[in-house]
Amino acid sequence: MGMLDAIKRKLYLETGADALYIESDFLRRYLTGFYATDGYVILTADSCKFVADLRYFEAAAEALRGTEIEVVEGGYPQALGLVAGCKALGVPFPLTTLTRAEALREAGFTLVDCMPACKRAMEIKSEEELNRIRKACEIAEDALLRLMPQLKEGMTERQTAALLEYEMRSLGAEGVSFETIVAFGKNGSVPHHETGETKLRFGDIVLIDFGCKVEGYCSDCTRTFLFGDDGEHEAFKRAYAEVLRAHELVKEKVVAGMTGREADEIARASLRRAGLDKYFTHSLGHGIGLQIHEFPVLSPKGEEILADGMVFSDEPGVYLAGQYGIRIEDSCYMAGGKTHSFMHKTSRELLIL
Amino acid sequence: MGMLDAIKRKLYLETGADALYIESDFLRRYLTGFYATDGYVILTADSCKFVADLRYFEAAAEALRGTEIEVVEGGYPQALGLVAGCKALGVPFPLTTLTRAEALREAGFTLVDCMPACKRAMEIKSEEELNRIRKACEIAEDALLRLMPQLKEGMTERQTAALLEYEMRSLGAEGVSFETIVAFGKNGSVPHHETGETKLRFGDIVLIDFGCKVEGYCSDCTRTFLFGDDGEHEAFKRAYAEVLRAHELVKEKVVAGMTGREADEIARASLRRAGLDKYFTHSLGHGIGLQIHEFPVLSPKGEEILADGMVFSDEPGVYLAGQYGIRIEDSCYMAGGKTHSFMHKTSRELLIL
Repeated sequence: MGMLDAIKRKLYLETGADALYIESDFLRRYLTGFYATDGYVILTADSCKFVADLRYFEAAAEALRGTEIEVVEGGYPQALGLVAGCKALGVPFPLTTLTRAEALREAGFTLVDCMPACKRAMEIKSEEELNRIRKACEIAEDALLRLMPQLKEGMTERQTAALLEYEMRSLGAEGVSFETIVAFGKNGSVPHHETGETKLRFGDIVLIDFGCKVEGYCSDCTRTFLFGDDGEHEAFKRAYAEVLRAHELVKEKVVAGMTGREADEIARASLRRAGLDKYFTHSLGHGIGLQIHEFPVLSPKGEEILADGMVFSDEPGVYLAGQYGIRIEDSCYMAGGKTHSFMHKTSRELLIL
Repeated sequence: MGMLDAIKRKLYLETGADALYIESDFLRRYLTGFYATDGYVILTADSCKFVADLRYFEAAAEALRGTEIEVVEGGYPQALGLVAGCKALGVPFPLTTLTRAEALREAGFTLVDCMPACKRAMEIKSEEELNRIRKACEIAEDALLRLMPQLKEGMTERQTAALLEYEMRSLGAEGVSFETIVAFGKNGSVPHHETGETKLRFGDIVLIDFGCKVEGYCSDCTRTFLFGDDGEHEAFKRAYAEVLRAHELVKEKVVAGMTGREADEIARASLRRAGLDKYFTHSLGHGIGLQIHEFPVLSPKGEEILADGMVFSDEPGVYLAGQYGIRIEDSCYMAGGKTHSFMHKTSRELLIL
């Protein structure tokens, strides 16, 4: 079955265990490219085995033929059999249950956290991964463009979310990358508003935070716009221009070699000059990949160094309790040392429908 | 803030720890009735506290006013502060990460698994919980009824799933309870078929396994039907009648006091008499609640005793590789010692559209 590829070999060496034992679904998908609700990946110095039960064995064997990954039929006992003789086992501590950890320790293994090495590996996306995220972004934007002309007075937030999700699925998405947030009017001033039964009215500010998945990879996008202009939104419009300025400045100024903290500060300083930084109550952005929240973290505490191949959100926002919220978010990637947006189809300028 | 209610008090006593420390989202929701993506529930002999950060504090304080639950603002440090002085901490081992477990042990706590007590508590649903599941079942069935007349030749499995999910959301569901499975033709012979790009053709067998959530509670339903009758499905029709017989026999014969194993055997024996039991490759059913897979387990290994207030699926099926699959599933509950279905709107008889 041949040698390990460079990424798996690095993962193995960085963890410093005799073998890696992976049960988490998205890490399995990351290592094999194959999706299954259950299964085990066992990584040793010179082999990568995927243990799949009868539901998945044939499909996995077919999909992984010709790769370095050997598919083995079985479950937990077979996975355990493959690491017999090992002493130190690498498992991802934040994704391993205490139940499983106790069982492995009782079986005589010492556990080593492989998550730091996995995070570092997953932070840098391959061309194939970037293409999947690009596709997920295109579908998200196309779906929003299909949604907009269907918005009508009296529609609820929940109906709007349902329609947007329907459009994403119709366009080929596997599903949403997180629960769609639709906030009408002052509901937008709660950054994590729970989509509910509020009805759309003429003149409402609409905030939609949404994304979908393509081959497991996520997109993340937020747009804030007006559903008709009732002439009562002058303060909102001024704040919108400032959030947009901060958003665009990030794409212009964030370069490889900066830390997540420095990137965050670019947006925060811009809002500070406008006196709005105290309303910017969350981080600038987060990594995006097989999970909607990955590394790097772009926040006042983000110490990671940004580099080519990283994918992250650029999402400054301001929230004035009981009044309105504004967030403008693109999924971005770094290439050639610079920040580029995956999103080119929907306007970031203030739209008035 | 008053005494604990009977369920929380029992949970506390059965676990036998100085305090329970709960971080899992659905256990938090179970104990407080309040949904938040983050937070901590601390249960002691005479108090229940919910630690919520700034995003959720106000909403939680408002929602839980007048209950026995005290809402405290903060995060992990505040949660830890509330258990200062405790020695043994009850945490759900299967829902606690090794990262968190190590941190708690380093802070000097001994960990005790509270999951067995949680499972026992959650197995028996209150009237309010039953009503939420009932509502989730009604929405699922209504959505299927809305979907059926919209099915057209050439639609893909994915489009069909998107449309069904849209109908559930429009009818008031919060979201799906699991990824909708739509299988056309022989795809149904894979019990966990991944919904894809296969197109619907005249004469196809259609298998749809789906459900939604209402206030966190799940529904689960499967229907198998024919999209037109091309006269080529005699073996399928005979098998369908046998699966339906097994399905209905379960509702008739499964009573309180039986084990999950005995319930499973009712369906399995019925299929055995028809020579089809070897194609019944999964369990009869599973508990349903805040999670799509809960207790009790109705399988050849199910040793739990069925009792009033339990909710479980009745889902016998047969799968003939490369030919067809049949599954008929209702969400059911036990009351007055007998099994009742939540589902009364869609036909279990073979439908030919």
